[in-house]
Amino acid sequence: MLIDPSYIRDRIRTVPDWPQAGVQFRDITPLLQDPKTFRVLVDCFVHRYMDHDIDVVAGVDARGFILGAVIAYELNRGFVPVRKKGKLPFTTVAEEYELEYGSATVELHSDAITPGQRVLLIDDLVATGGTMIAAARLIRRLGGEVIEAAAIVDLPELGGSRLVQEQGIPLFTVCDFAGH
Amino acid sequence: MLIDPSYIRDRIRTVPDWPQAGVQFRDITPLLQDPKTFRVLVDCFVHRYMDHDIDVVAGVDARGFILGAVIAYELNRGFVPVRKKGKLPFTTVAEEYELEYGSATVELHSDAITPGQRVLLIDDLVATGGTMIAAARLIRRLGGEVIEAAAIVDLPELGGSRLVQEQGIPLFTVCDFAGH
Repeated sequence: MLIDPSYIRDRIRTVPDWPQAGVQFRDITPLLQDPKTFRVLVDCFVHRYMDHDIDVVAGVDARGFILGAVIAYELNRGFVPVRKKGKLPFTTVAEEYELEYGSATVELHSDAITPGQRVLLIDDLVATGGTMIAAARLIRRLGGEVIEAAAIVDLPELGGSRLVQEQGIPLFTVCDFAGH
Repeated sequence: MLIDPSYIRDRIRTVPDWPQAGVQFRDITPLLQDPKTFRVLVDCFVHRYMDHDIDVVAGVDARGFILGAVIAYELNRGFVPVRKKGKLPFTTVAEEYELEYGSATVELHSDAITPGQRVLLIDDLVATGGTMIAAARLIRRLGGEVIEAAAIVDLPELGGSRLVQEQGIPLFTVCDFAGH
Protein backbone atom coordinates (compact mmCIF):
# COMPACT_ATOMS: atom_id res chain seq x y z
CA MET A 1 0.00 0.00 0.00
CA LEU A 2 1.32 3.43 -0.93
CA ILE A 3 -0.19 5.09 2.17
CA ASP A 4 1.28 4.40 5.60
CA PRO A 5 -1.38 2.30 7.37
CA SER A 6 -0.52 3.90 10.73
CA TYR A 7 -2.03 7.15 9.40
CA ILE A 8 -5.39 5.34 9.37
CA ARG A 9 -4.89 3.15 12.44
CA ASP A 10 -3.85 6.08 14.63
CA ARG A 11 -7.11 7.89 13.81
CA ILE A 12 -9.43 5.01 14.78
CA ARG A 13 -11.00 5.55 18.20
CA THR A 14 -10.96 2.65 20.63
CA VAL A 15 -14.04 2.57 22.87
CA PRO A 16 -13.47 0.23 25.83
CA ASP A 17 -16.17 -2.18 27.01
CA TRP A 18 -18.55 -1.62 24.10
CA PRO A 19 -20.94 -3.19 23.20
CA GLN A 20 -20.08 -5.33 26.22
CA ALA A 21 -17.48 -5.60 28.97
CA GLY A 22 -14.05 -6.71 27.77
CA VAL A 23 -14.52 -5.65 24.14
CA GLN A 24 -12.31 -2.89 22.75
CA PHE A 25 -14.53 -1.46 20.02
CA ARG A 26 -12.70 0.07 17.04
CA ASP A 27 -14.72 3.12 16.04
CA ILE A 28 -14.10 4.26 12.47
CA THR A 29 -16.32 7.37 12.62
CA PRO A 30 -13.32 9.71 13.23
CA LEU A 31 -11.90 8.58 9.87
CA LEU A 32 -15.02 9.85 8.12
CA GLN A 33 -15.48 13.05 10.08
CA ASP A 34 -12.18 14.68 9.10
CA PRO A 35 -12.15 15.52 5.35
CA LYS A 36 -8.47 14.79 4.82
CA THR A 37 -8.57 11.47 6.68
CA PHE A 38 -11.72 10.51 4.77
CA ARG A 39 -9.96 11.18 1.48
CA VAL A 40 -6.79 9.32 2.48
CA LEU A 41 -8.91 6.38 3.62
CA VAL A 42 -10.72 6.22 0.28
CA ASP A 43 -7.37 6.52 -1.50
CA CYS A 44 -6.14 3.37 0.27
CA PHE A 45 -8.78 1.48 -1.70
CA VAL A 46 -8.89 3.50 -4.93
CA HIS A 47 -5.12 3.21 -5.42
CA ARG A 48 -5.50 -0.56 -5.12
CA TYR A 49 -8.60 -1.12 -7.23
CA MET A 50 -8.46 1.47 -9.99
CA ASP A 51 -6.44 -0.90 -12.17
CA HIS A 52 -8.34 -4.05 -11.15
CA ASP A 53 -10.99 -5.44 -13.48
CA ILE A 54 -14.12 -4.82 -11.36
CA ASP A 55 -17.71 -4.62 -12.61
CA VAL A 56 -19.57 -3.66 -9.45
CA VAL A 57 -18.95 -2.83 -5.78
CA ALA A 58 -21.06 -4.45 -3.04
CA GLY A 59 -21.22 -2.85 0.42
CA VAL A 60 -22.40 -4.47 3.63
CA ASP A 61 -25.17 -2.89 5.75
CA ALA A 62 -24.59 -0.37 7.27
CA ARG A 63 -21.02 0.93 7.73
CA GLY A 64 -19.93 -0.85 4.55
CA PHE A 65 -22.34 1.41 2.65
CA ILE A 66 -20.28 4.49 3.49
CA LEU A 67 -16.96 3.34 2.13
CA GLY A 68 -18.41 1.03 -0.52
CA ALA A 69 -20.48 3.77 -2.13
CA VAL A 70 -17.54 6.18 -2.35
CA ILE A 71 -15.23 3.53 -3.79
CA ALA A 72 -17.85 2.57 -6.39
CA TYR A 73 -18.34 6.21 -7.31
CA GLU A 74 -14.61 6.86 -7.61
CA LEU A 75 -14.12 3.76 -9.77
CA ASN A 76 -17.10 4.70 -11.99
CA ARG A 77 -18.85 1.48 -11.07
CA GLY A 78 -22.30 0.70 -9.71
CA PHE A 79 -23.00 0.02 -6.06
CA VAL A 80 -25.20 -2.78 -4.69
CA PRO A 81 -26.20 -3.04 -1.02
CA VAL A 82 -25.99 -6.29 0.95
CA ARG A 83 -28.65 -5.75 3.59
CA LYS A 84 -29.85 -7.17 6.86
CA LYS A 85 -32.96 -9.31 6.59
CA GLY A 86 -36.21 -7.63 5.61
CA LYS A 87 -34.77 -4.38 4.26
CA LEU A 88 -34.70 -5.05 0.51
CA PRO A 89 -38.07 -4.66 -1.24
CA PHE A 90 -37.55 -6.69 -4.43
CA THR A 91 -36.97 -10.45 -4.77
CA THR A 92 -33.88 -11.49 -2.81
CA VAL A 93 -31.47 -14.29 -2.08
CA ALA A 94 -30.66 -14.79 1.61
CA GLU A 95 -27.88 -16.36 3.66
CA GLU A 96 -28.05 -17.10 7.36
CA TYR A 97 -24.87 -17.18 9.43
CA GLU A 98 -23.95 -17.92 13.01
CA LEU A 99 -23.26 -15.27 15.62
CA GLU A 100 -21.77 -15.87 19.06
CA TYR A 101 -25.34 -16.21 20.33
CA GLY A 102 -27.97 -16.97 17.70
CA SER A 103 -27.83 -16.16 14.02
CA ALA A 104 -28.31 -13.36 11.50
CA THR A 105 -29.34 -13.17 7.86
CA VAL A 106 -28.10 -11.00 5.00
CA GLU A 107 -29.89 -10.48 1.71
CA LEU A 108 -29.11 -9.30 -1.79
CA HIS A 109 -31.56 -8.34 -4.54
CA SER A 110 -31.69 -11.25 -6.96
CA ASP A 111 -30.95 -8.88 -9.87
CA ALA A 112 -28.10 -7.06 -8.08
CA ILE A 113 -25.43 -9.20 -9.74
CA THR A 114 -25.51 -10.79 -13.17
CA PRO A 115 -23.63 -14.03 -13.89
CA GLY A 116 -19.95 -13.47 -14.59
CA GLN A 117 -19.73 -10.06 -12.93
CA ARG A 118 -16.56 -9.35 -11.01
CA VAL A 119 -17.49 -7.98 -7.59
CA LEU A 120 -15.49 -6.04 -5.01
CA LEU A 121 -17.02 -6.60 -1.56
CA ILE A 122 -16.58 -3.85 1.05
CA ASP A 123 -17.20 -3.76 4.79
CA ASP A 124 -15.63 -1.66 7.54
CA LEU A 125 -14.15 -4.38 9.71
CA VAL A 126 -13.38 -8.10 9.73
CA ALA A 127 -14.08 -9.70 13.12
CA THR A 128 -15.41 -13.28 13.01
CA GLY A 129 -15.83 -13.01 9.24
CA GLY A 130 -19.40 -14.33 9.36
CA THR A 131 -21.04 -11.40 7.60
CA MET A 132 -18.38 -11.16 4.93
CA ILE A 133 -18.51 -14.88 4.11
CA ALA A 134 -22.33 -14.82 3.97
CA ALA A 135 -22.21 -11.77 1.67
CA ALA A 136 -19.70 -13.52 -0.60
CA ARG A 137 -22.00 -16.57 -0.77
CA LEU A 138 -24.87 -14.36 -1.92
CA ILE A 139 -22.72 -12.92 -4.69
CA ARG A 140 -21.58 -16.37 -5.79
CA ARG A 141 -25.15 -17.74 -5.75
CA LEU A 142 -26.05 -15.04 -8.31
CA GLY A 143 -23.10 -16.09 -10.48
CA GLY A 144 -20.77 -13.29 -9.46
CA GLU A 145 -17.07 -13.65 -8.76
CA VAL A 146 -15.81 -12.04 -5.55
CA ILE A 147 -12.50 -10.76 -6.84
CA GLU A 148 -11.63 -9.42 -3.39
CA ALA A 149 -13.19 -8.54 -0.05
CA ALA A 150 -11.84 -5.41 1.58
CA ALA A 151 -12.21 -3.64 4.90
CA ILE A 152 -10.51 -0.92 6.89
CA VAL A 153 -9.72 -3.00 9.96
CA ASP A 154 -8.80 -6.61 10.61
CA LEU A 155 -9.10 -8.05 14.12
CA PRO A 156 -6.86 -11.07 13.47
CA GLU A 157 -7.30 -12.65 16.91
CA LEU A 158 -10.98 -13.24 16.14
CA GLY A 159 -9.92 -15.42 13.23
CA GLY A 160 -12.29 -13.99 10.62
CA SER A 161 -9.65 -12.94 8.11
CA ARG A 162 -8.28 -16.49 8.06
CA LEU A 163 -11.78 -17.97 7.59
CA VAL A 164 -12.55 -15.54 4.74
CA GLN A 165 -9.41 -16.53 2.89
CA GLU A 166 -10.12 -20.25 3.50
CA GLN A 167 -13.33 -19.68 1.49
CA GLY A 168 -11.19 -18.71 -1.48
CA ILE A 169 -11.93 -15.02 -1.03
CA PRO A 170 -8.87 -12.77 -1.38
CA LEU A 171 -8.89 -10.23 1.46
CA PHE A 172 -7.40 -6.76 1.79
CA THR A 173 -7.45 -4.71 4.98
CA VAL A 174 -5.78 -1.37 5.60
CA CYS A 175 -4.69 -2.03 9.19
CA ASP A 176 -5.15 -4.47 12.03
CA PHE A 177 -5.45 -4.50 15.79
CA ALA A 178 -4.20 -7.24 18.06
CA GLY A 179 -6.62 -7.63 20.97
CA HIS A 180 -10.29 -6.87 20.67
CA MET B 1 -31.92 21.81 -11.05
CA LEU B 2 -29.74 21.46 -14.13
CA ILE B 3 -30.56 17.76 -14.55
CA ASP B 4 -34.02 16.68 -15.69
CA PRO B 5 -35.59 15.06 -12.61
CA SER B 6 -37.47 12.56 -14.77
CA TYR B 7 -34.11 10.94 -15.58
CA ILE B 8 -33.93 9.95 -11.92
CA ARG B 9 -37.63 9.34 -11.31
CA ASP B 10 -37.95 7.02 -14.30
CA ARG B 11 -35.16 4.81 -12.94
CA ILE B 12 -36.69 4.29 -9.49
CA ARG B 13 -38.36 0.90 -9.17
CA THR B 14 -41.82 0.77 -7.66
CA VAL B 15 -42.44 -2.40 -5.66
CA PRO B 16 -46.17 -2.84 -4.98
CA ASP B 17 -47.47 -3.94 -1.56
CA TRP B 18 -44.14 -3.69 0.26
CA PRO B 19 -43.53 -3.68 3.18
CA GLN B 20 -47.30 -4.07 3.51
CA ALA B 21 -50.40 -4.27 1.34
CA GLY B 22 -51.35 -0.98 -0.29
CA VAL B 23 -47.88 0.59 -0.10
CA GLN B 24 -46.08 1.38 -3.35
CA PHE B 25 -42.45 1.21 -2.23
CA ARG B 26 -40.02 3.43 -4.15
CA ASP B 27 -36.83 1.40 -4.51
CA ILE B 28 -33.75 3.52 -5.18
CA THR B 29 -31.31 0.62 -5.60
CA PRO B 30 -31.48 0.74 -9.44
CA LEU B 31 -30.14 4.31 -9.25
CA LEU B 32 -27.01 3.05 -7.53
CA GLN B 33 -26.49 -0.09 -9.56
CA ASP B 34 -26.00 1.62 -12.93
CA PRO B 35 -22.75 3.65 -12.96
CA LYS B 36 -24.08 6.47 -15.12
CA THR B 37 -27.32 6.84 -13.16
CA PHE B 38 -25.33 6.79 -9.91
CA ARG B 39 -23.12 9.59 -11.18
CA VAL B 40 -26.04 11.67 -12.47
CA LEU B 41 -27.82 11.19 -9.13
CA VAL B 42 -24.79 12.42 -7.19
CA ASP B 43 -24.47 15.35 -9.62
CA CYS B 44 -28.02 16.45 -8.73
CA PHE B 45 -26.70 17.20 -5.24
CA VAL B 46 -23.13 18.22 -6.01
CA HIS B 47 -24.25 20.84 -8.55
CA ARG B 48 -26.48 22.32 -5.85
CA TYR B 49 -24.14 22.21 -2.86
CA MET B 50 -20.66 22.81 -4.27
CA ASP B 51 -21.11 26.56 -3.90
CA HIS B 52 -22.99 26.38 -0.58
CA ASP B 53 -21.11 27.08 2.64
CA ILE B 54 -21.22 23.62 4.25
CA ASP B 55 -18.92 22.29 6.98
CA VAL B 56 -20.05 18.69 7.27
CA VAL B 57 -22.52 16.22 5.72
CA ALA B 58 -24.72 14.05 7.95
CA GLY B 59 -26.33 10.91 6.51
CA VAL B 60 -29.21 8.93 7.97
CA ASP B 61 -28.91 5.17 8.70
CA ALA B 62 -28.79 3.26 6.40
CA ARG B 63 -29.68 4.34 2.83
CA GLY B 64 -28.71 7.93 3.64
CA PHE B 65 -25.16 6.68 4.24
CA ILE B 66 -24.77 5.75 0.58
CA LEU B 67 -25.59 9.11 -0.94
CA GLY B 68 -24.41 11.19 2.03
CA ALA B 69 -20.92 9.68 2.01
CA VAL B 70 -20.43 10.29 -1.71
CA ILE B 71 -21.70 13.87 -1.49
CA ALA B 72 -19.38 14.56 1.47
CA TYR B 73 -16.45 13.06 -0.42
CA GLU B 74 -17.19 15.06 -3.58
CA LEU B 75 -17.53 18.29 -1.58
CA ASN B 76 -14.29 17.58 0.34
CA ARG B 77 -16.18 17.59 3.60
CA GLY B 78 -16.40 15.15 6.50
CA PHE B 79 -19.26 12.68 6.91
CA VAL B 80 -21.09 11.94 10.16
CA PRO B 81 -23.60 9.10 10.55
CA VAL B 82 -26.99 9.55 12.21
CA ARG B 83 -27.70 6.04 13.45
CA LYS B 84 -30.50 3.92 14.79
CA LYS B 85 -30.43 3.39 18.53
CA GLY B 86 -27.59 1.37 19.99
CA LYS B 87 -25.25 1.44 17.01
CA LEU B 88 -22.86 4.26 17.94
CA PRO B 89 -20.15 3.30 20.44
CA PHE B 90 -19.13 6.69 21.86
CA THR B 91 -21.22 9.13 23.92
CA THR B 92 -24.35 10.11 22.03
CA VAL B 93 -27.35 12.39 21.95
CA ALA B 94 -30.66 10.69 21.16
CA GLU B 95 -34.07 11.72 19.80
CA GLU B 96 -37.17 9.58 19.87
CA TYR B 97 -39.87 10.07 17.27
CA GLU B 98 -43.28 8.61 16.54
CA LEU B 99 -43.97 5.99 13.92
CA GLU B 100 -47.39 4.87 12.70
CA TYR B 101 -47.25 2.19 15.38
CA GLY B 102 -44.78 2.78 18.21
CA SER B 103 -41.64 4.87 18.11
CA ALA B 104 -38.02 4.85 17.00
CA THR B 105 -34.84 6.56 18.19
CA VAL B 106 -31.93 8.05 16.27
CA GLU B 107 -28.55 8.94 17.76
CA LEU B 108 -25.55 11.07 16.90
CA HIS B 109 -22.11 10.99 18.51
CA SER B 110 -21.91 13.96 20.85
CA ASP B 111 -18.67 15.10 19.18
CA ALA B 112 -19.96 14.64 15.63
CA ILE B 113 -20.91 18.30 15.29
CA THR B 114 -19.22 21.31 16.88
CA PRO B 115 -21.21 24.45 17.72
CA GLY B 116 -21.68 26.72 14.72
CA GLN B 117 -21.05 24.08 12.08
CA ARG B 118 -23.19 24.26 8.97
CA VAL B 119 -24.63 20.83 8.27
CA LEU B 120 -26.14 19.31 5.14
CA LEU B 121 -28.49 16.46 6.13
CA ILE B 122 -29.01 13.61 3.63
CA ASP B 123 -31.52 10.78 3.47
CA ASP B 124 -32.91 8.81 0.55
CA LEU B 125 -36.60 9.60 0.90
CA VAL B 126 -39.01 11.89 2.75
CA ALA B 127 -42.18 10.06 3.81
CA THR B 128 -43.66 11.16 7.16
CA GLY B 129 -40.56 13.27 7.86
CA GLY B 130 -40.13 11.81 11.35
CA THR B 131 -36.59 10.55 10.92
CA MET B 132 -35.40 13.70 9.17
CA ILE B 133 -36.86 16.01 11.82
CA ALA B 134 -35.37 13.90 14.63
CA ALA B 135 -31.97 13.96 12.90
CA ALA B 136 -32.17 17.75 12.52
CA ARG B 137 -32.98 18.07 16.24
CA LEU B 138 -29.85 16.09 17.10
CA ILE B 139 -27.73 18.40 14.96
CA ARG B 140 -29.28 21.48 16.53
CA ARG B 141 -28.82 20.12 20.07
CA LEU B 142 -25.07 19.94 19.35
CA GLY B 143 -25.10 23.56 18.16
CA GLY B 144 -25.07 22.83 14.45
CA GLU B 145 -27.13 24.64 11.84
CA VAL B 146 -29.04 22.46 9.37
CA ILE B 147 -28.52 24.54 6.27
CA GLU B 148 -30.64 22.12 4.25
CA ALA B 149 -32.07 18.62 4.35
CA ALA B 150 -31.98 16.76 1.06
CA ALA B 151 -33.29 13.49 -0.31
CA ILE B 152 -33.82 11.80 -3.65
CA VAL B 153 -37.56 11.27 -3.33
CA ASP B 154 -40.44 13.18 -1.75
CA LEU B 155 -43.74 11.43 -1.10
CA PRO B 156 -45.76 14.63 -0.69
CA GLU B 157 -49.04 12.91 0.16
CA LEU B 158 -47.53 11.63 3.39
CA GLY B 159 -46.96 15.22 4.46
CA GLY B 160 -43.40 14.86 5.67
CA SER B 161 -41.88 17.47 3.39
CA ARG B 162 -44.33 20.07 4.72
CA LEU B 163 -43.58 19.11 8.35
CA VAL B 164 -39.82 19.32 7.74
CA GLN B 165 -40.12 22.82 6.33
CA GLU B 166 -42.43 23.87 9.19
CA GLN B 167 -39.49 23.07 11.50
CA GLY B 168 -37.48 25.75 9.72
CA ILE B 169 -35.46 23.19 7.79
CA PRO B 170 -35.01 24.05 4.10
CA LEU B 171 -35.67 20.92 2.03
CA PHE B 172 -34.46 19.82 -1.39
CA THR B 173 -35.66 16.67 -3.16
CA VAL B 174 -34.80 15.55 -6.69
CA CYS B 175 -38.23 14.15 -7.58
CA ASP B 176 -41.56 13.25 -6.07
CA PHE B 177 -44.26 10.64 -6.38
CA ALA B 178 -47.94 11.22 -5.84
CA GLY B 179 -49.45 8.14 -4.21
CA HIS B 180 -47.47 5.89 -1.93
